[in-house]
Amino acid sequence: MSDKAVAFAQENGERFVEELKDLLRIPSVSTDPERVGDVRKAAEFVAEGLRKAGLENVRLIETSTAERKGHPLVYGDWLKAPGKPTVLCYGHYDVQPAEPLDEWKSPPFEPTERNGNLYARGAVDDKGQMWMHVKALESLMSSTGSLPVNVKVLVEGEEEVGGEGIEAFVREHGDVLKADAALVSDTEMFAPDLPTLCVGLRGMIYTELEVRGAMVDLHSGMYGGAAPNPFVALAQIIAKLKREDGHIAIPGFYDGIEEPTKAELDAWRALPFEEEHYRKTEVGSPELVGEPMFSVLERTWSRPTMDVHGMPGGFTGAGAKTVIPAKALAKISFRLVPGMKPAETFAKYKSFVEQICPRGVSCEVRMIHSGEPIVVSTDNDYIAAAAEAMKAVWGKETVYVRGGGSIPIVGDFVRELGIPTVLMGFGLPDDNLHAPNEKFHLANFHRGTESIIRFFERLGA
Amino acid sequence: MSDKAVAFAQENGERFVEELKDLLRIPSVSTDPERVGDVRKAAEFVAEGLRKAGLENVRLIETSTAERKGHPLVYGDWLKAPGKPTVLCYGHYDVQPAEPLDEWKSPPFEPTERNGNLYARGAVDDKGQMWMHVKALESLMSSTGSLPVNVKVLVEGEEEVGGEGIEAFVREHGDVLKADAALVSDTEMFAPDLPTLCVGLRGMIYTELEVRGAMVDLHSGMYGGAAPNPFVALAQIIAKLKREDGHIAIPGFYDGIEEPTKAELDAWRALPFEEEHYRKTEVGSPELVGEPMFSVLERTWSRPTMDVHGMPGGFTGAGAKTVIPAKALAKISFRLVPGMKPAETFAKYKSFVEQICPRGVSCEVRMIHSGEPIVVSTDNDYIAAAAEAMKAVWGKETVYVRGGGSIPIVGDFVRELGIPTVLMGFGLPDDNLHAPNEKFHLANFHRGTESIIRFFERLGA
Repeated sequence: MSDKAVAFAQENGERFVEELKDLLRIPSVSTDPERVGDVRKAAEFVAEGLRKAGLENVRLIETSTAERKGHPLVYGDWLKAPGKPTVLCYGHYDVQPAEPLDEWKSPPFEPTERNGNLYARGAVDDKGQMWMHVKALESLMSSTGSLPVNVKVLVEGEEEVGGEGIEAFVREHGDVLKADAALVSDTEMFAPDLPTLCVGLRGMIYTELEVRGAMVDLHSGMYGGAAPNPFVALAQIIAKLKREDGHIAIPGFYDGIEEPTKAELDAWRALPFEEEHYRKTEVGSPELVGEPMFSVLERTWSRPTMDVHGMPGGFTGAGAKTVIPAKALAKISFRLVPGMKPAETFAKYKSFVEQICPRGVSCEVRMIHSGEPIVVSTDNDYIAAAAEAMKAVWGKETVYVRGGGSIPIVGDFVRELGIPTVLMGFGLPDDNLHAPNEKFHLANFHRGTESIIRFFERLGA
Repeated sequence: MSDKAVAFAQENGERFVEELKDLLRIPSVSTDPERVGDVRKAAEFVAEGLRKAGLENVRLIETSTAERKGHPLVYGDWLKAPGKPTVLCYGHYDVQPAEPLDEWKSPPFEPTERNGNLYARGAVDDKGQMWMHVKALESLMSSTGSLPVNVKVLVEGEEEVGGEGIEAFVREHGDVLKADAALVSDTEMFAPDLPTLCVGLRGMIYTELEVRGAMVDLHSGMYGGAAPNPFVALAQIIAKLKREDGHIAIPGFYDGIEEPTKAELDAWRALPFEEEHYRKTEVGSPELVGEPMFSVLERTWSRPTMDVHGMPGGFTGAGAKTVIPAKALAKISFRLVPGMKPAETFAKYKSFVEQICPRGVSCEVRMIHSGEPIVVSTDNDYIAAAAEAMKAVWGKETVYVRGGGSIPIVGDFVRELGIPTVLMGFGLPDDNLHAPNEKFHLANFHRGTESIIRFFERLGA
């Protein structure tokens, strides 16, 4: 182990950031059918980055699902370290939609530096973090001529739309992806300067609930009082799905949940977390909500939840239109925790909605996508190497946390490849993922790249 | 009284319809700021029609409210029948938005005849019905050289956005509008070929309810379980505003309501109304809803209601976005019946929402516009003349009904001018007001014009 690669990364850090900006300028919004070309352009950019880093067999792998052609995977490998472990590096080059555009201080696809941060859609989720993998590999290869471990890199373009393409590829091509562990940088540090490994993620089901009443839109003056109102019906259903104390009222919803261990709960209590500070600086609502018997960390890490993301339909323009819409929709998702299965949860939810569907309307529930919850054991060499690498860079003990979000691929790696995943993430809690003014703290980009270099070096030592 | 004017209307009926089509081609959507020019164009078209009919003093009257410049009123008069009554004819030349456009069989602003109907946004509400007034006056003037009564015509361009401009004008210029009765054709016949006079209208308040939670949009994975969800909060509020049996739960909401008389209720029961036919052909929902103790006609004519028209905010695009929106909105209106006051109802509603506003969010209720409920006495010469005129054209007794919608100007005429309004409307129940594929039955356009001619002739006899 030498410091050559770290020195290379430090000397070339500014160039790495400029390259990242070029990638961030490509609006690779995977959910938007009009951005198909941009998504592919981002894939090609990543492939070129892997070639430049010295990886071999670099190629785009086309994906498709039953319904549609998918966005390509980017693959590359370097397998010339016999007797050393093989690490599968995963990231994604697609991004969330940038709307609402008018809330961005600088345009989402014009990366802008302010106060040591880089602002752009995808800065931290996940282009910036994926790019650290590429640049860590380049630093090792350029400074030493080889890598300390075998590496396979797989970068997808559908993480924000459910990742069906990669899921199928992992299921069908386990041989190609055979590895000892996976490395994913798509999570965050618990606090600035606190090296953090994420060892658990919630799963999810994302659904649409459609309610239909009258056969056409009706005038609320003429028909109000007799015609069913699908928005009122949706409101009644939603109010029954989730009690006011945050408890989800679907029968059997909480059955089988695996609670965190006492040791894990104790460790969470020791984390530097102030609820009032979190409320004020991150959430900004008058109060926090959720199940009163659980702490905020439990509510966001180890308890399932339900959220409504939008309710399309009816009249949403300026002013007044007195319409009783024929139909209305709610986009509803549930976060799942270990012990819950997406398909089972969906079945319970669907059955409950059918049971409480108000009179006068019909209710239809559709699954948009899902991901399984996972817990990574802390008891393996890869987690240990990652914890040491981060400790070396930050000079502090690495803490273990969970994440409330979902990275379905981590479940696929466990299920299909039988390998653990190291979730070494460098985002910060106020990075505005999925929101306007997404950013990446540039110091974390550089220290993160160094941590990844040291992680590979430790594994190869 | 002669049949000259009716003969003129019959001879020129086709031309009248072609002129109406020209008016319908102007997309005078008053709620859309981008249509200001089109709204004015429609006003000028109406003014030209009044001039051609032989009216005098024809002019556009500018309006404005505290917040914005309004759309113009069109005025014209003919006051050369001394000793005869003066009738104030009212109509509106603005129309509802045409969305959703993809549900129209022919484009909303390309008037198209099919099966004896004229399809276009505004065909019946209210350009087509207003145009009958203009053409009835033209028929009388062209065929006899004068009118049998004095006439003032006032046509507004803000009926679909609350009519604040005309309300102020009526309040401030009662002298200009002094008349013995008003004539409004903006309602419908109870059934095809059943001459109908509307003698009561519901009032309304149209509101926006805004709920704010977090200060920015948040990722539902990271914050779900702790951050308040404004759509869930809105659902909880809406579910508390209206019980599942249709009863509105705002304290004091029903206080002071004036019930219809036993005679009126008996007359309603005698009307040709089949609930199952109405459900199947007009509403098309699996069931009708509403307060179980009241008939459908009571629920839509003499009972107040609440409807949700749309819930803007959050993610409404295709696919999935895992956002907890910072805010969400519901467009909510209430229909009011005699005995209820818009300002008082709004105050009760606002106070109740503030009281039930869920924890973690703030709630704000805004009034968008309002109109008072009214009942017209059937005991006057104008109603009698209208009933006779319609009976003469259709050869059947005219029935008295109420309307569930709101025509706020009728309340203004009572309050500011002290005059009764004759609501002689020629729409049909399936005319798709405020919905895609709005139409006007052309036979009703012609018979309606004839009815209006005969109404004026009877009043002047």
